[in-house]
Amino acid sequence: MKSLNKEKGIPYYLQIKEILEERIFNNIYPVNSLMPSETVLAEEFGVTRATIRNALKELKNAGLIYTEKGKGTIIKSPKIEQSLLKFYSFGREFKNSPYDIGSKVISKEKITPTLDLTEKLQVDEKSFLFKVERLRLFNSIPMILETSYIPEYIAGNIINEDLENKSIYDLLEEKYGVKIIKAKEYIEPKISDEIEANLLEIPRQSPVFYTERITLAPGNKPVELRRSIIRGDKFKFYTELY
Amino acid sequence: MKSLNKEKGIPYYLQIKEILEERIFNNIYPVNSLMPSETVLAEEFGVTRATIRNALKELKNAGLIYTEKGKGTIIKSPKIEQSLLKFYSFGREFKNSPYDIGSKVISKEKITPTLDLTEKLQVDEKSFLFKVERLRLFNSIPMILETSYIPEYIAGNIINEDLENKSIYDLLEEKYGVKIIKAKEYIEPKISDEIEANLLEIPRQSPVFYTERITLAPGNKPVELRRSIIRGDKFKFYTELY
Repeated sequence: MKSLNKEKGIPYYLQIKEILEERIFNNIYPVNSLMPSETVLAEEFGVTRATIRNALKELKNAGLIYTEKGKGTIIKSPKIEQSLLKFYSFGREFKNSPYDIGSKVISKEKITPTLDLTEKLQVDEKSFLFKVERLRLFNSIPMILETSYIPEYIAGNIINEDLENKSIYDLLEEKYGVKIIKAKEYIEPKISDEIEANLLEIPRQSPVFYTERITLAPGNKPVELRRSIIRGDKFKFYTELY
Repeated sequence: MKSLNKEKGIPYYLQIKEILEERIFNNIYPVNSLMPSETVLAEEFGVTRATIRNALKELKNAGLIYTEKGKGTIIKSPKIEQSLLKFYSFGREFKNSPYDIGSKVISKEKITPTLDLTEKLQVDEKSFLFKVERLRLFNSIPMILETSYIPEYIAGNIINEDLENKSIYDLLEEKYGVKIIKAKEYIEPKISDEIEANLLEIPRQSPVFYTERITLAPGNKPVELRRSIIRGDKFKFYTELY
């Protein structure tokens, strides 16, 4: 748990915003409950009500709370809003955030590709791929079930790396000299099956995103295919259309 | 049903691609079934096998078919692939396509906004909105259940327009002088409820997209809020990430 650090140089309202955000994600402030009043929060943190108001404004912009006249500030479903306009990586994006980010390796193995994988990764059917299945955790809460397929010729030893604490993209770039230039991602709605629901700790038959991402190095060379089951109760995607 | 028009000036392979695509969407070639062979198709259309191959390549790129060695060409689930990188409009996009596009108005009424709508559309709680619920059809198949909220001050008579055959965006621009500059869209997975499933003619509790789009005129003035239930068995979204 974070607390306000008055030496830190980061504006108080931003620090408070992060602390409150953490409380929302950790269910200390449950969905649909009332947030403590500005006065109470100002007293707790030893700051002015104006500072609290600025922190609340940030939370409102992040879609985590809303205000209702005569009632107060109410907690919304704490969905992480993820832009679909830029390359996002769960591991990278939250690396320097106040959240405790981690992964749990569910399985890893060396396989020969199915026909579908040979086409998508542009590899021979007799070649080898690494298949890594990881559960991505956010403050110890399982958020995404992710299966990566990486051709052996791209990263010959990646299966033995520290895949619980390191981003696959970082490993590819830093250890294997793979420059990632872009990815194409498909998004579909899905109802979680039993295995997914158990691993993600959600009720069976919950709505989830199913995404398939193909990540490309220069010359449009596929370096990874990633299939993810993303909790629909924790994430929403957004895009801007012109 | 379209047929090949040799006078038309459109390359044969593109015309054939559209005809085959229509057959896939209309279930004449059902999912997982084998496509007729190149020879059979060449004979049917009176073209060379090379022309058929080009048409099939287009269908493959559109994600509608795949080839399996020793088996042939197989029909994939016919999902419409929709880019999330540019402003898309079902009505506009398919206006000049070979598909029969239409809408069925389910309900239309004048309402006062909920608190949520006052914030999102930046209107007063005592103002009026038009609420229009439409089922969007594609070759008579219901694809999207769409609820639009348009402030009365933006388009005072839009509820009386021909909303079954006209795009709301076209009406706003052409009849009401509203210039649409962009939209922000949120995407979530959802399980269809009974009403949605009945209207969309899908099994109850099917996976669907739930999207909320706010459309903006210059000065970031909201002109429409649109909530859509989009069939997950017919659509997939994609984006390119850099």
